[in-house]
Amino acid sequence: MVKTNKENDSTLRVMKGIEQPGQINMELVGKFKSRKTKNLPVNIYIDGILAGNHTILSQAITLVESSLPKDQEKAQEVITACLKSRQSAVGSRQSTTVYPDKDRKNDPVGSIRIGITGAPGVGKSTFIEALGTYLTQNGHKLAVLAIDPSSARSKGSILGDKTRMEDLSVDPNAFIRPSPSTGKLGGVARKTRETIILCEAAGFDVIIVETVGVGQSETAVHSMVDFFLLLMMADAGDELQGIKRGIIEMADAIIINKADRDNIGKAKAARVEYANALHLFPASDSGWSPVTDICSSITREGIERIWEIILKHNELLQKNGYFSHKRMEQNLQVLEDCIEEGLRNHLFSRKNTAKAISMARSEITKGTVSPYTAARELLEGYFREL
Amino acid sequence: MVKTNKENDSTLRVMKGIEQPGQINMELVGKFKSRKTKNLPVNIYIDGILAGNHTILSQAITLVESSLPKDQEKAQEVITACLKSRQSAVGSRQSTTVYPDKDRKNDPVGSIRIGITGAPGVGKSTFIEALGTYLTQNGHKLAVLAIDPSSARSKGSILGDKTRMEDLSVDPNAFIRPSPSTGKLGGVARKTRETIILCEAAGFDVIIVETVGVGQSETAVHSMVDFFLLLMMADAGDELQGIKRGIIEMADAIIINKADRDNIGKAKAARVEYANALHLFPASDSGWSPVTDICSSITREGIERIWEIILKHNELLQKNGYFSHKRMEQNLQVLEDCIEEGLRNHLFSRKNTAKAISMARSEITKGTVSPYTAARELLEGYFREL
Repeated sequence: MVKTNKENDSTLRVMKGIEQPGQINMELVGKFKSRKTKNLPVNIYIDGILAGNHTILSQAITLVESSLPKDQEKAQEVITACLKSRQSAVGSRQSTTVYPDKDRKNDPVGSIRIGITGAPGVGKSTFIEALGTYLTQNGHKLAVLAIDPSSARSKGSILGDKTRMEDLSVDPNAFIRPSPSTGKLGGVARKTRETIILCEAAGFDVIIVETVGVGQSETAVHSMVDFFLLLMMADAGDELQGIKRGIIEMADAIIINKADRDNIGKAKAARVEYANALHLFPASDSGWSPVTDICSSITREGIERIWEIILKHNELLQKNGYFSHKRMEQNLQVLEDCIEEGLRNHLFSRKNTAKAISMARSEITKGTVSPYTAARELLEGYFREL
Repeated sequence: MVKTNKENDSTLRVMKGIEQPGQINMELVGKFKSRKTKNLPVNIYIDGILAGNHTILSQAITLVESSLPKDQEKAQEVITACLKSRQSAVGSRQSTTVYPDKDRKNDPVGSIRIGITGAPGVGKSTFIEALGTYLTQNGHKLAVLAIDPSSARSKGSILGDKTRMEDLSVDPNAFIRPSPSTGKLGGVARKTRETIILCEAAGFDVIIVETVGVGQSETAVHSMVDFFLLLMMADAGDELQGIKRGIIEMADAIIINKADRDNIGKAKAARVEYANALHLFPASDSGWSPVTDICSSITREGIERIWEIILKHNELLQKNGYFSHKRMEQNLQVLEDCIEEGLRNHLFSRKNTAKAISMARSEITKGTVSPYTAARELLEGYFREL
């Protein structure tokens, strides 16, 4: 659907930042909401995102999450434009005010991506609310994304998230987006990666990706962030039941949350235990030694320290070159993952493949066929019919 | 090449166990060594393996390691036959004497696969020599395989291994095979998995897979064994530099080696540290809590205890069903890996693919193209030309 010139003009006024993103023309938002916004022209998405318009950003993310080939084609155009804009923004970094921290003005990358995980009940939402509010009060723009394909979250869950993050949900410098509600982890991870690109192009300089930490999703999150934070409670014994093995060794920081009221002593003791344990771990490739700390999302004690830890980590990795190296490695991994996904999708698009694989799995489970033979026969059939 | 009947007869005498595997007719071995043994008929390989003939087993492994399509076809036949023989062996388990441990006679699986990793210098070879000798003295048959594609080991390294494992190398109940000397990790891992099948069909009831623990190979080993043992030294601080992060959380046991002479006190202290750290880790899916212990490969103090730990682990996992569940999961993973490998190999077999991927990687590194776009263009070109 092509929009009229008049509509485009007024639309662009919002998108190009003539109205401030935080003070969106509500009449226009109403218009957007009432139409099939997926049919917006590509340049409207791009201009809107670059102008920092939350509504357009939201609609562009919906486009990215769509599985329709036509939408995907459009989405890739938007993503490519966003990547290019980030490139040029890096070139003119000196003049931007994205980084209030004075020593980060020359940051060649332009954002910090933080993964936050922890067992259910550990207080992730209130922690993100506390850290996020601190960040926006200090001049940052924060996007909070969730990656959690295993949960029962529905499309309505954005309300749930926003309720749990009361201040951030009405903060003009914050943007909260729940996990795509459908799809397998691989697809969700890919869409989250692409959403990060859009958010950064929209001017968000801190991206928090939240995951529940009970499934495989924390590995996916770890592969798309710069800093990985594991949130814990003092009663480690009970709460450890909820998280997966392997997470602790991924963590750049283990933070004991709920260090308030009667809990402070216990939290401090837990911190010492984790500090002792971490020093037995091999150093990470980045040269960063994982740290431990305590905080309270209620009293906000420790929140500032945690941001300082993240900045210190960033500074070290920027200096030794590991920061951009890691992002580059992550991008190369995305290439590998996409190729693999594309090849698999093609295999599964052939009639009978799904059935053949399901039969192979059943026979392997019964032990009546070797997985090598099963794979070989399956592929032979596939390539024969190409 | 079809062998004459006479040759087949005498060959089979060895293979069918008329000569004991430990007392191989050296004249025949000479014959095998002097001919292109890869051209042996499939049934000779199979009969030889099932008869427990080390020489034929060795030659079959060479067949498995060959990358020639013709050899691979033959190798798959041998592997399938070995898998089937194991199935029937499981059915008649009562009558075998493979398991001297009286409470394991009804073991429905038929072997224990142990992964052993640790930094260079931690004493893996002497530890395997100590544990292995204990096992063969107690009626077990032990195969030691290595998986280490990153090392500079050449084909001649079997001599090195054998020198380091003096007793095992001349033990008729032990079989030592170094890592395939060429190929990427994926290929080496696959060949090692297949080698395990051959060894088990040849009657080896304990399989040790050794890895250096400095690369990615320990993840591959973890995915093919029942029990994963991390070998450490007392001076954790120094030696931790040598191993990769993530290994500690994979371990079913952390064993402090070299607990002899002046080292015993330090080893005990290190054990306590690791025990404290491990109790902060989430429980593993199997219900097994990782344990710590000390040992000396020289005085052999602790070696028997380590075998008891492995048996205890086995007993728990057999009882709760996780043992066969895990093996089944591993086999299903092999199916996935083989499919992926097959699809990728086909992609790379097309002219220009390697060049196109290399160009894409270079552009991604420079940041001039998004990995999504690069993957998409690459796959479009591939599928168009199919």
